Amino acid sequence: MRVDARANDELRPIHITPGFIPHANGSALIEFGSTKVICTATVEERVPPFLKGTGKGWLTGEYAMIPASTNIRKPRESSKGKVEGRTHEIQRLIGRSLRSIINLDEIGERTIWIDCDVIQADGGTRTASITGGFIALIHCINWMIKQGMIEKSPVHSYVAAISVGIYDGQAVLDLCFEEDSNAQVDMNLVMTDTGEFIEIQGTGEESSFSMEELKQMMQIGQAGIKTIISMQKDSLGGLTELVAGDAR
Amino acid sequence: MRVDARANDELRPIHITPGFIPHANGSALIEFGSTKVICTATVEERVPPFLKGTGKGWLTGEYAMIPASTNIRKPRESSKGKVEGRTHEIQRLIGRSLRSIINLDEIGERTIWIDCDVIQADGGTRTASITGGFIALIHCINWMIKQGMIEKSPVHSYVAAISVGIYDGQAVLDLCFEEDSNAQVDMNLVMTDTGEFIEIQGTGEESSFSMEELKQMMQIGQAGIKTIISMQKDSLGGLTELVAGDAR
Amino acid sequence: MRVDARANDELRPIHITPGFIPHANGSALIEFGSTKVICTATVEERVPPFLKGTGKGWLTGEYAMIPASTNIRKPRESSKGKVEGRTHEIQRLIGRSLRSIINLDEIGERTIWIDCDVIQADGGTRTASITGGFIALIHCINWMIKQGMIEKSPVHSYVAAISVGIYDGQAVLDLCFEEDSNAQVDMNLVMTDTGEFIEIQGTGEESSFSMEELKQMMQIGQAGIKTIISMQKDSLGGLTELVAGDAR
Amino acid sequence: MRVDARANDELRPIHITPGFIPHANGSALIEFGSTKVICTATVEERVPPFLKGTGKGWLTGEYAMIPASTNIRKPRESSKGKVEGRTHEIQRLIGRSLRSIINLDEIGERTIWIDCDVIQADGGTRTASITGGFIALIHCINWMIKQGMIEKSPVHSYVAAISVGIYDGQAVLDLCFEEDSNAQVDMNLVMTDTGEFIEIQGTGEESSFSMEELKQMMQIGQAGIKTIISMQKDSLGGLTELVAGDAR
Amino acid sequence: MRVDARANDELRPIHITPGFIPHANGSALIEFGSTKVICTATVEERVPPFLKGTGKGWLTGEYAMIPASTNIRKPRESSKGKVEGRTHEIQRLIGRSLRSIINLDEIGERTIWIDCDVIQADGGTRTASITGGFIALIHCINWMIKQGMIEKSPVHSYVAAISVGIYDGQAVLDLCFEEDSNAQVDMNLVMTDTGEFIEIQGTGEESSFSMEELKQMMQIGQAGIKTIISMQKDSLGGLTELVAGDAR
Amino acid sequence: MRVDARANDELRPIHITPGFIPHANGSALIEFGSTKVICTATVEERVPPFLKGTGKGWLTGEYAMIPASTNIRKPRESSKGKVEGRTHEIQRLIGRSLRSIINLDEIGERTIWIDCDVIQADGGTRTASITGGFIALIHCINWMIKQGMIEKSPVHSYVAAISVGIYDGQAVLDLCFEEDSNAQVDMNLVMTDTGEFIEIQGTGEESSFSMEELKQMMQIGQAGIKTIISMQKDSLGGLTELVAGDAR
Repeated sequence: MRVDARANDELRPIHITPGFIPHANGSALIEFGSTKVICTATVEERVPPFLKGTGKGWLTGEYAMIPASTNIRKPRESSKGKVEGRTHEIQRLIGRSLRSIINLDEIGERTIWIDCDVIQADGGTRTASITGGFIALIHCINWMIKQGMIEKSPVHSYVAAISVGIYDGQAVLDLCFEEDSNAQVDMNLVMTDTGEFIEIQGTGEESSFSMEELKQMMQIGQAGIKTIISMQKDSLGGLTELVAGDAR
Repeated sequence: MRVDARANDELRPIHITPGFIPHANGSALIEFGSTKVICTATVEERVPPFLKGTGKGWLTGEYAMIPASTNIRKPRESSKGKVEGRTHEIQRLIGRSLRSIINLDEIGERTIWIDCDVIQADGGTRTASITGGFIALIHCINWMIKQGMIEKSPVHSYVAAISVGIYDGQAVLDLCFEEDSNAQVDMNLVMTDTGEFIEIQGTGEESSFSMEELKQMMQIGQAGIKTIISMQKDSLGGLTELVAGDAR
Repeated sequence: MRVDARANDELRPIHITPGFIPHANGSALIEFGSTKVICTATVEERVPPFLKGTGKGWLTGEYAMIPASTNIRKPRESSKGKVEGRTHEIQRLIGRSLRSIINLDEIGERTIWIDCDVIQADGGTRTASITGGFIALIHCINWMIKQGMIEKSPVHSYVAAISVGIYDGQAVLDLCFEEDSNAQVDMNLVMTDTGEFIEIQGTGEESSFSMEELKQMMQIGQAGIKTIISMQKDSLGGLTELVAGDAR
Repeated sequence: MRVDARANDELRPIHITPGFIPHANGSALIEFGSTKVICTATVEERVPPFLKGTGKGWLTGEYAMIPASTNIRKPRESSKGKVEGRTHEIQRLIGRSLRSIINLDEIGERTIWIDCDVIQADGGTRTASITGGFIALIHCINWMIKQGMIEKSPVHSYVAAISVGIYDGQAVLDLCFEEDSNAQVDMNLVMTDTGEFIEIQGTGEESSFSMEELKQMMQIGQAGIKTIISMQKDSLGGLTELVAGDAR
Repeated sequence: MRVDARANDELRPIHITPGFIPHANGSALIEFGSTKVICTATVEERVPPFLKGTGKGWLTGEYAMIPASTNIRKPRESSKGKVEGRTHEIQRLIGRSLRSIINLDEIGERTIWIDCDVIQADGGTRTASITGGFIALIHCINWMIKQGMIEKSPVHSYVAAISVGIYDGQAVLDLCFEEDSNAQVDMNLVMTDTGEFIEIQGTGEESSFSMEELKQMMQIGQAGIKTIISMQKDSLGGLTELVAGDAR
Repeated sequence: MRVDARANDELRPIHITPGFIPHANGSALIEFGSTKVICTATVEERVPPFLKGTGKGWLTGEYAMIPASTNIRKPRESSKGKVEGRTHEIQRLIGRSLRSIINLDEIGERTIWIDCDVIQADGGTRTASITGGFIALIHCINWMIKQGMIEKSPVHSYVAAISVGIYDGQAVLDLCFEEDSNAQVDMNLVMTDTGEFIEIQGTGEESSFSMEELKQMMQIGQAGIKTIISMQKDSLGGLTELVAGDAR
């Protein structure tokens, strides 16, 4: 029996509120149970030095937690004057995941910033960030088309992410904080709507896991991703036509 | 005629949503028109070095803006590795304002952190932070009493803040970003429910102002504060009894 | 009776030594009692990024204290690797105050740096910095004219600053450190020779103050400013003709 | 045909030189083809704050590259004043991997530092670091026993790591830099001698991969790990008895 | 002929103003021609971690330049967020030089800070800092005795420093900035009143020098030091009895 | 009798392994007894701002120690976020020493980086860095000629460095760590093959030294440098023709 009485392969209630930050070029509040992340997408008219003059664009992710998002107040990284290793790791994951489903040759020399600000954390903040960041991105693409920056959407697939793990010897889906803290194995899956992997990161938390356990986790993870992507589609409504894969 | 058709002494619509971050010891979302700030209050069981062993507590404020809160994306201070002068100035103001209405001798050797995270900025974020920070503080005091940390509330007055300015030669209340950018004078008032001043900061933005203009600004500012404090009371409901002054 | 036996509305002895740092483009040592600040003005042939190509100039202030300036040695901010909030606040105030009395359109794409280095601190260092920074600025303007950088002075008014406060229930002028540490209210006034305000910053140090107290402080503050500006004029001698307002 | 004419499932020549840094408590130079990493293990008589007083020890990893290790000189992170995200990610991986095969309850309140300094980089530096870090660790354990710090080895398994990828549509083992830069998928496997996973990190480099491709990569990866662990055993000689699992 | 018409072995005019910063425990303004340095000595009631519990004291030096001290404004190290290599080098030299003439076992677990703030720079700031730092130190020792912290002076010798160099093929004493910038060799000598060396640092500025040139520089340097130490004695007046060597 | 039974004027065994890092443009491993330093030289196609557009090149040095190079693990400067004073001092010395024997006008607008990474430290790491850095530099020059960047070598002299000191009242050559820690005087000499000085840095470690002691140290130091330069020549083999002075 899980701490919140869910079945092993059951997701927490998921809510997506698009347009949560009207000033942003694209935005969404995403909730997985008590985990809440504000995701925004913003266009900047320049690219990092290594892309200058190439005509190609860039997409990058940033991630932060407000101090009261965790049970024990988390000091601000700005006050400490440096960004933690964990934050770097998550930011890099968000960036790689969303870059994999967009053709950056088609957006001109611009950077799309995906900012994920966790306002309440109860496990799975990085996967919620990727899932909600995708929604903010599509709204941003819509805005770019309206602004005349681009003519058609450069996004070719859906992307969503979920955590899986081994808890009490059993594969479980979408771990909350309490489960996550006690899991033997913690794994994050990032996948597309065609069932392809973008990223897979599994770690035996100071322990190890077998091939059989890996298979079980992937199985419930794939099913979870499928459900989440259908929720993304519902949330996007008419904007689904901005995902090329959707016409497949 | 003001840019949003308000009268010179008219506040923007104000909304207070207490308990916006359930994990925090106290919290509120405060909105002044399009300006939205998440305010939280968190108790930490230790004090800064200068108070160790004194039996006295501390209250401090922190302030940040999410990158998409402004029209042009604002780079994170954590990524830049340092906190800007403006942020320092605002944080110090929030801390001083809220320390002035609480008896810190009565909370034991604890620190109350008031975190103000701006999720959308349209002028007046520092005054909204103080006003909303007060609500978060009272909810936090309520939680501390329930936890048995303290027996009665150490808060002795209400505190609220508002901006006033001289725009087009006229004194105006609660400036939005567009007004603020073009005002000749920008002034922030922090006041108690008894009409006392806690802080007054007026600056001729690369210009100057007369005693007469100062008086006009203070007049509409005082009236504005009065209205805001009555909204704080409405929002607090039964918790108003935690403000000693309320029994006066 | 004040700690140094002054009347409530009496300034400490003020001394201005122009040209204290001959290498600087403009300089002055300013003393308010035991408070001593070296103020220099230096011209740099470039502007911050936001002004590039506009033809407009900039003026900015920096402030520091030598370690032995205070009773307890104050660690260097360079050694700590970061600038404190208080320093940021003061630097911003110095910059705003002096920008308000100069027409920056007339100096070309140059930056004037006003550096204020406190060599002994006994209260009122920020107001002494503004007052002495003005003298350094006028000497710098004189140097710029001699160098042929500009033809006429872009300075249109005098500016001076002073602290006032409520101490033992009475409004007092020009607080020394001991008074400042125990004052109920601390206020800084920055004003021009025409009696206009440039900046007003009053704070109830963890307490509050009434409209009546505010009026009393402003009254003795205005008189103090008037005296200080006449000392600035004496110190400037023939250079007073570089302040346009002086011809009024 | 691979760029260095290897078979798809063929490792580069691997050399392990234990005791490369005699001053360290344990050390090894590990080479995978042109990739060369100095790994050292050092004991420190204290633990991070969260372990103080628990009687439990800690193990942590650090990673750096000398500037000339890459084709284009890599600026030092010390000169830049901050540690890059990639470095953080690798350091965390090294630490987690080696913590998973040691019982930290048995080493007392001490920290074992595993330092991995890349002196030449040609792909696979993080997996080489883990593999070589294990050798340095065992030598360090041997030294701790000789010093009388511990009585028996707390290490219960071997751990080794290798990279796999999809290159030109085919699964390949142990990618060199040129392959790594052009691979569609890049995956790192960290495994024990009993065939269990400690960590699996696969990323479609701005692309995606199928379940079938995942299986192929894992198959050649597992075989590669097996070979590497037999090399670790050869290198350790009589010290293999310090790995409890070796008695299985 | 030297740029300022001095003889090759002639010092610039030297002025020492003891007690320049009355708040400091010891202080002096020292001038070598246009070079002016404020030196202060301050006692702190604690020692660095490596001396805790040893009963021994410490002495350390810090050095900074105010921005307008040089012809081109020198940005503050606090604003840049880091201390330059040159500053580190000078600070370490000041500390070593003054530690060599004091018995730190005799001051208890205290740190004496020697702060050297250059307010105008025209070559030789580091040697002026050491020479003036010594005066501040003796005044500080006098203060410590008066405070009852120590019974007798722990200082056993005088120390002074001077620069020498090879300019236009000739050995010259006490180089001003213009000479220093064009010298083939630049050397700093730190010596005691008994003619012993404490530090000798000579550098061929991107060139080299012979044994013969070295001898010439040392000869005029030794004579210069002798003169400077007699000036230190004059400046100290009755305090010379605090230097044990003076009784020799 | 010295701790390692050497004669007072005897060097430790010196080994030079050129080409130790094949990826670098020039490299060498240099060993003085147990002290081991990896020296590399790398060409970068740009110069610091102050040389832009001058057609002149630059040479700079960097120095670091791997954590396990010392008996007690030395925390990484990258983790601490700042470079220590000692490191700055050594880096500046390496740069000055090698700049003095190369004509930087002849290498175009390029920077040659000399990186010295200490992998084991037993005294004399800075002098080993200079001596080995010279070998890396000559190999780099050879590579530049082969690449067609320059036509002939811009190096005009050999440069080598050694430490000398006063230990137990006697002048000794090439101090190991144990001697260095207990020496009364520590001195570093940097010299050319023609017997000229490039740098001389002697410090009485919290003590002082006489002219006679200085002479003794210089005598054995000069002899030591002569031996080291002959080893450099042996190590360079046919590349000695790249040092112009060699044809003298």
